[in-house]
Amino acid sequence: MHISGRTRLIAHLGYPTESFKAPMIYNPWFENQSVDVKVVPMGIKPEDYASLIPALFSLTNIAGALVTMPHKVATCGLVDRMSPTAQIAGACNAIRREADGSLTGDMFDGDGFVRGIQRKGFGTVGARAMVVGSGGVGSAIAASLAAAGVSALTLYDARESTAHALADRLQGHYPQLELTVMDNDPAGHGLVVNASPLGMLPADPLPMDVQRIEPGTFVGEVVMKQTFTPFLQAAMARGCPVQPGTDMLFEMIPAYLDFFHLPVATPDRLRMLAEIHD
Amino acid sequence: MHISGRTRLIAHLGYPTESFKAPMIYNPWFENQSVDVKVVPMGIKPEDYASLIPALFSLTNIAGALVTMPHKVATCGLVDRMSPTAQIAGACNAIRREADGSLTGDMFDGDGFVRGIQRKGFGTVGARAMVVGSGGVGSAIAASLAAAGVSALTLYDARESTAHALADRLQGHYPQLELTVMDNDPAGHGLVVNASPLGMLPADPLPMDVQRIEPGTFVGEVVMKQTFTPFLQAAMARGCPVQPGTDMLFEMIPAYLDFFHLPVATPDRLRMLAEIHD
Repeated sequence: MHISGRTRLIAHLGYPTESFKAPMIYNPWFENQSVDVKVVPMGIKPEDYASLIPALFSLTNIAGALVTMPHKVATCGLVDRMSPTAQIAGACNAIRREADGSLTGDMFDGDGFVRGIQRKGFGTVGARAMVVGSGGVGSAIAASLAAAGVSALTLYDARESTAHALADRLQGHYPQLELTVMDNDPAGHGLVVNASPLGMLPADPLPMDVQRIEPGTFVGEVVMKQTFTPFLQAAMARGCPVQPGTDMLFEMIPAYLDFFHLPVATPDRLRMLAEIHD
Repeated sequence: MHISGRTRLIAHLGYPTESFKAPMIYNPWFENQSVDVKVVPMGIKPEDYASLIPALFSLTNIAGALVTMPHKVATCGLVDRMSPTAQIAGACNAIRREADGSLTGDMFDGDGFVRGIQRKGFGTVGARAMVVGSGGVGSAIAASLAAAGVSALTLYDARESTAHALADRLQGHYPQLELTVMDNDPAGHGLVVNASPLGMLPADPLPMDVQRIEPGTFVGEVVMKQTFTPFLQAAMARGCPVQPGTDMLFEMIPAYLDFFHLPVATPDRLRMLAEIHD
């Protein structure tokens, strides 16, 4: 199914764009389903983003937008309404235009992460979890973990105020949740997650002291630069079950598809069709 | 070659988009050449167009824009400089972003038309030509015919002031050109061109009195709704050599490709690769 004048667009917004994977996951699925929609990467710098959004959604053939770094937080100020998860996360990774022209923002990073670890057998209810990184994706994962019933959350971010702000938003929605802020010692947690950018660059330090991760602790990653980052490799060497960043990506796509009112696929089906060649 | 984060975009701007053909002509050529560029249709209404252009060209992976109805004239006010042909035409159908971020507009409709008739053996130097329709495409064809050395041009437009304004712009650049305004009698011309929208709708009248076209007169058309419009069919019945609107389209593409600094193909090669199924 080729691009034509009848093709509707899902803009994939971020900067830089080189590592984008969504076009190679969504587009084969749309082709498989004979749905005339294409995910199209659009690189946009932070200083130009606020002007782009209204212009982009004035296109007559725009179906929606996938939002990635560095625009997830800024999107909150550019949509007309947000889901509760997006509100806690303080970030959106999806924008949909409603029939009346208004824009709705939602956030599926956290849902994708939680769906993935649950399908791998991790029981979230009552678990003690640590999330390193309180930016868009870290906040989303924390929000989704709280919604999935964890009893305790430990938060850490290089910017201390960011971690505290997330804790405040979580506490407002989940007053019974046990929150610890600015600790990145993985010991004593059933789940530890790297939701920081550490691992994007080869020279990056590990996001926590891996020697303190207990064998049996479930270890999750959001960096997708490579399937098994140095952090995940170290965790696997300790015998820990892991979830790579790309799993989160595939797990969240059914939620996205539903949000855009498009045919929904299972993560496995999407992965089978995807044209990603590392 | 699939869409990825490395793909550069050529926006195809117009409204409505359903009849767009450029994506199915350019994209197979880019694929053939392993050039990671895609022509992507973007439907945009006139009232939203001026805001879109700066936002669109703030994208980091935009390679340029193809502009079609109804935006060719409005584009002149949105670019930083125009070619002489675009200035005479008073219209642009291509926008390129320069290294310094400024925008250059150009107009290839006329070049495409003239390249096509020349390749079919029509000698433009010293010819007497009539162009019916003084809008964007008619003005562009008139400008390119003047540049190609015709000695006389007869202009006609349903809006009389539009035809006179074109004549004035032409005369300013080509003081030696013999201009006749508001005559649509084809007799006495070696070339007659329908550059009006007549032929888009089944009920349209013919753009001129076909009985007055002399056998041997070369007859050109810009309407692409069907290859041989009723006008061209009538001309062919009189024994006239003709050029359909789609020929102009394929002939102008090499000029566009050159403008965007992309690999150039011959019109025949493009036509062979095109994925247009009428």
